[in-house]
Formats: sequence, C-alpha cells, structure tokens
Amino acid sequence: MATNLTINSERLWDTLMDTAQYGATPKGGVRRLTLSDEDRMVRDWFTKACEAAGLTLAIDTMGNMFATRPGTDPNAPPIAVGSHLDTQPAGGKFDGILGVLAGLEAIRTLNDAGYQTTHPITLINWTNEEGARYAPGMSGSGVYSGELTYEQMMSSADKDGAVFGEELERIGYKGTEPVGERKFAAFVELHIEQGPILEAEEIQIGVVEGGQGLYWFDGTVAGRDSHAGTTPMTHRRDAMMALAELALAIEEIALANAPAAVGTMGEVAVLPGSRNTIPGTATFRAELRHPDGATLTAMAEALDAKIAEIAARRPVDITLDMRWRKDPVTFDPRVVEAVAAAVEKHGLTSKRMISGAGHDAFYVASLCPTGMIFIPCWEGISHNEEESATQVDCAAGAQVVLDTLVRLDETL
Amino acid sequence: MATNLTINSERLWDTLMDTAQYGATPKGGVRRLTLSDEDRMVRDWFTKACEAAGLTLAIDTMGNMFATRPGTDPNAPPIAVGSHLDTQPAGGKFDGILGVLAGLEAIRTLNDAGYQTTHPITLINWTNEEGARYAPGMSGSGVYSGELTYEQMMSSADKDGAVFGEELERIGYKGTEPVGERKFAAFVELHIEQGPILEAEEIQIGVVEGGQGLYWFDGTVAGRDSHAGTTPMTHRRDAMMALAELALAIEEIALANAPAAVGTMGEVAVLPGSRNTIPGTATFRAELRHPDGATLTAMAEALDAKIAEIAARRPVDITLDMRWRKDPVTFDPRVVEAVAAAVEKHGLTSKRMISGAGHDAFYVASLCPTGMIFIPCWEGISHNEEESATQVDCAAGAQVVLDTLVRLDETL
Repeated sequence: MATNLTINSERLWDTLMDTAQYGATPKGGVRRLTLSDEDRMVRDWFTKACEAAGLTLAIDTMGNMFATRPGTDPNAPPIAVGSHLDTQPAGGKFDGILGVLAGLEAIRTLNDAGYQTTHPITLINWTNEEGARYAPGMSGSGVYSGELTYEQMMSSADKDGAVFGEELERIGYKGTEPVGERKFAAFVELHIEQGPILEAEEIQIGVVEGGQGLYWFDGTVAGRDSHAGTTPMTHRRDAMMALAELALAIEEIALANAPAAVGTMGEVAVLPGSRNTIPGTATFRAELRHPDGATLTAMAEALDAKIAEIAARRPVDITLDMRWRKDPVTFDPRVVEAVAAAVEKHGLTSKRMISGAGHDAFYVASLCPTGMIFIPCWEGISHNEEESATQVDCAAGAQVVLDTLVRLDETL
Repeated sequence: MATNLTINSERLWDTLMDTAQYGATPKGGVRRLTLSDEDRMVRDWFTKACEAAGLTLAIDTMGNMFATRPGTDPNAPPIAVGSHLDTQPAGGKFDGILGVLAGLEAIRTLNDAGYQTTHPITLINWTNEEGARYAPGMSGSGVYSGELTYEQMMSSADKDGAVFGEELERIGYKGTEPVGERKFAAFVELHIEQGPILEAEEIQIGVVEGGQGLYWFDGTVAGRDSHAGTTPMTHRRDAMMALAELALAIEEIALANAPAAVGTMGEVAVLPGSRNTIPGTATFRAELRHPDGATLTAMAEALDAKIAEIAARRPVDITLDMRWRKDPVTFDPRVVEAVAAAVEKHGLTSKRMISGAGHDAFYVASLCPTGMIFIPCWEGISHNEEESATQVDCAAGAQVVLDTLVRLDETL
C-alpha cells in the first residue's frame, strides 16, 4: 500500500502567500485576530478552497471548521489534520496557518492522484488558538476537548468590550453543530517549531513526542520603601534584592534539570520606582516548564524551598500564587511512529523532540491518537512579523503530513 | 560668655503645626511644591514672622530669603541658619521646615533675652530644595554656591510646562539681590535624620560631620526576546537574569564596604513584559554612596569589573551610563565642634554621623564653615505624609542650634 504521492511545493507556497493578504501588515507580517473581519475573510477564503477541493464543510457552535473528504468505509471515523488560521496582533505568515494549508495541500494531492483513503480525512481550522484577543488561547480545541467551558468562552469580552459569542455571530461563523460531538481516529498537526533547535542543528523535521508540563505563578515581595541614602544596608527591607535572588533561583532550578527544563521571569514591577528610594514592593509573573510531570513538581517544590530560604534570610515577605498547572502531554506512539516512518521514507533529517509551546494538538490528544510535526523557522522567532520559514522546509513538512495521513489510514 | 538661653519648646511646636496648614493633606502631611500657591502662602507667613521678630528681609533673584538680626559689629559677616520650606508632593511637616523654624525660634529666644551677638544672624529659606517640581533639588543653594547655573534653573519647566522663572515672578518672590553675593561667617542647618539610626539607637542628636559621596548611574541590558517555552536555557539571551546579577552585585559591593556604604537599584523596567516571553531588554537606575571619595571610586570600579564579568559570561550587552558623581562633603571642624559642645552642655546623647541624604548645607559648605544637626524621626521615614518627629526631639535640636549659633558668634 506504499504510495509515491508528492505534494506540490509551489502550490503550497502560493497558497501560504495568498492567505497572508488577509490582515497583511506593512512589515510583512499578519494581524488576524480571532473573530475579526480579517478572520472572517480568511474563513471565507477557506470555505471556498474546501468547496473547490470537494470537501464537505461543517462548523460547530465554537466556530471550529471541519472540512471532510470522504473515505471508502462509511463507518470509519475520520483522520483529522489541521491547526489554526488566526494570528497574534503582530504575527507571521506561518504560525498555525502552515498546519491548515499543509492539510489542504495533502488533500489536493490525494485528489489529483485520485487516491482513495479508507477513513475520511477531515481538515480542521480551530477557533482562537492564539488567545491574543480572547484569553485563554487554544479555546476552540479546549472547549472541543471539554477542558474549557463553552459558556465561559462565549461570554468573554475583549479589551474593547466586544463579546466572543456576538463577534462569532457577527462574522457569520457560529455554526450549528454541538462542540465536541465529532470524533476522530487520529489528529495530526504541522507547525513551525517556534524555537531555535532545528535551525541551529540543521535538521529538517521535528518528530514531536509530546508537550511540556507548565507551572505559571505570580509572586509578590513585600519589604519597605525607604530612603536610599540614609538607610544602612543592615536596616533595609529591599524588595528588589529579594526579587533578584528569586529570578536567579528560577534559572538555577531550570539549569539543575537540564536540558529539558526551562524557567523564565518575564514580567516584573518594582515600586515605588525611584532611583533613590529602596523599593518596598516587587511583583513578578514567572513560569517553569518540563516534559516530565514529576520533575516539574520537584522543580516547583525546589522553588518553594528557595523562597522560604530567602524570606528567612531577608526581612521581606514573599507570597507565591500558582495560577496554572498544566500536565505534560505524551503523544500516541502510533502517530509518532507514523511521522517517523514518513521522515525515513523521504530521507529527511529529523530529531525527536518535545514541544515547548502550547498547541491545539495537546487538547485533542486527550480524545484521540495525536501527533505533531515541526519544521525549522528562522532564528526560532514567532509571534513576530519577522517570523519566517523556507519554502523547502514547508514543503518537507507538508509531505510528512501527507505520508503520515496515508500511513495512519492504513494502520489504524 | 556662657549663656543659659533656653528655647521655647511650645512656641516652636506651635509654629511647626501652624505652618503645616499651608498645603496640608488629609493624611496629615504637607504638599507644598516649590513656587506653588502653597509655597507663596508659607513665604508670606515667613515674611510676617520675620518682620515681627524685627528681622530685615532680603530676597535674591532665585527667591532665596535672607532675614537678618543685626549684630554689634557692623563689619562682621552674618552667621547663617536655616533650611527650606518647600516639601515633596506627599511630604511631611518636618523635612526642611524644622531647620527654618528652629532658626526662627533661636532668634526669638535671643530677642526675648535681649541677647546681643557680635555677628548678625541671618535666617535662610532656600528655594526648591526638594527638586520634586523642578529638577535638580537643592537648586536655591546650588545656584547660590555657583555649582548650578542660574539661567538653566530659570528656564526649566515643570511637567505641565510652567517655567521656573515665571512661576517665581507669579508668586511674587523673585527678588532683586544678585544670587551668591551675600557672604556668611558660617552656616548651620538642623534637619530630621531621614534615616533609622538615631531612633534605633535611642540617641537625641546627630552631630553631622559631612555628607556621603554619590554615584548615580543608568544601565541597559540588551539580550533578545524569545519564546519562554521553546527556547532552551542554553539558547537564551535573557536580560532579566543579567539584571538580577547586577542588582545583587550592587548589594554585594555595598556590603563589602560596610558599614558606611549603601547601594540601591530603585528603578527597573523589564521588556517586553510578558510572562511567557524571555525579556530581551532590561533597564535600571541605581546608585552607590560612600562618605569617602576614594572608596566610592573603588566601588564604582568594582561594579564595572562585575559588569564586564557578567557580560563575558552571559550573551547580553550591558551599558552603564554615569549620570552624576557627587564628591563627599566634610564639614568644618569649627562648626562640628560647636555643635558637639552644645550637645555636651545640655547632657544630650549624641552620635557623630554622616548624612545619607543631600542638603542645602552641602552646597553652602563650599563657601563658608558649615555644619548640620540631626534629630531622630519616626522609623526613619521621610518624603512621606507619615513623617514625624517628637516635640522633645525638635526642641532639643532647636536648643543645639541656638547654642551653636552663640558659640560660633563667640569663637569665629
């Protein structure tokens, strides 16, 4: 049953560049916030492209779009492929979009060859993966998987007060199908890596085995404002110095769990914010990530211990508030091995890896066998107008998508 | 020539509380920004109080006010005493004000006793010590001493665009006397400590021997923004972590030069400021202080060395921009010993100390023998509506002012 189906690199690239016009920014990026007019335009385009490819489109009440190519077995559940078409406020042409359009390219290639799969193939555009306009992100797949609440998303408002449910109706993409009823045999998502590893190591394909667990926490250091000139070092309750130790503790804990662990303190406020006043307050938002749940827990415990040690040594109060704990995701070995086989078949260089970023595939993984494919992106940059990937790498990714779909169709 | 002149504690306290009405805040503090209507009101009050005490008032073109009680020797230069009547935006009732009103109380006591000094006594209210509305602070005494430029201060604008020179004319306190022509035999300034030492050690009077040198610097750490989930620790250019090391280096350098050294990082910005983005930029404003100039220089050099070490070890660029270097001030031993003698005469507990904050006396010290007297303030707090000092401590400070003036009159 091995095939020699070959995707059309030019067609994929032209389609990518074509859709980039919806929300195109002067700097070559894309601004296509979920449920905006630009989102409507790309959805209209997607609807027509699916119809032209002979697919049957259904839309659920979250606006998730499912375009299906029939299989030969009317009882077989579909194999799904896709990602998202929304972008960050100053996003790029590839994040999410590549995963949808590579699925479309795979289907077009099947069509051109007249290739019949046993399972139907369903191409998916998930609503609001980015979360930039409506938090949290990955909410289309999150509600689909049952891990986020439909009502809560529907009533959430953007910063201008526009309500999610109303905006979804306004752009005409609130469908009628109940969310989550549609079941799949498998789900495959292609994505740019959004990190530097594949490019740095000159590897073409990342065979993604799962996603990191994550621990988000907010913290406050409470000391006392006082005069920087008149307060001796021994009388200070300096929140900035305790904050500095905390930042380095996060780094140290990540390094102690190398190479997979990461730790970041991305947001900081030091108050009152005057050069000659000792800061009495420092607040921060930070995170730890690790692909192994037990290690992640141990990292969080190490941080708690370090905080206790700092607060015992310095005259400050430190409070830590855990905001979100997401357990690691392990992808289904059947999908991972189908990806690996596709890579091997085409002689591509590859690396088994863990996704550092969050993706719709993580929610879907709780419902059906799921896997992801990464390709390199320039300097690992995304969520940025400068985000870029080469035509060759995009085509290699789409080819792996196609071969993975065909192999899953044969083996599931 | 020893005297038993005793100041009137009640009168001093009532005068302090009386002037606190000009710019009184609901929380019991004072908002009396320089050259504001509130500043005009307290100057009007001061003018009348000086006239009532028989003093001759002169005002220079910076708005500095000089109220003189004649001496018996028409050729002797005046001995000066005073401080400032302006406050921080949310200031207290004592910072600066006590120094002016204690001088007034000393003169009132001399008047009541019919005591004749050889030198004239001049009571001074310096313009814009606080610098909160027009930077820099201590500008009345700074222009007087020739270390700041008259034209620059006159043309400087506040955040609403109001020009210093125009505001000075508007409130009616732009005098005609050229700034800096008036010469003094000595200058004495009483002030709250604005630090915790006297209160903590239960000492009544600080005999101030000089002021710290100070080194103000701005810095930038330049790394690279990147995704907190997908960028391995080894690929990061994290500006926050380098900033944290810098903060702790400042602390370490201060501790290595204990007990006199202090170091503070009071202002920090970490960008772009998102929990899951590694910060590519961090900026800060910081300072080091030490009473010995050579030690201060060595501390700055130690910081430079530490910065070079951090920048060599981490993939970030660190730039440090020195904004201000102020050399330490050493007060004239004749004034310091006059203060010490007054303390001893009244059996007060005292401590020789260095001022951590800046004061008008530091500029005046370049022109004539100068000294300062500190009293404790509650928890070392100032620049705050909660700033407070006891009536007993204020009275002790004013008594030392009076005895110091009399002793300087006898010995200079």
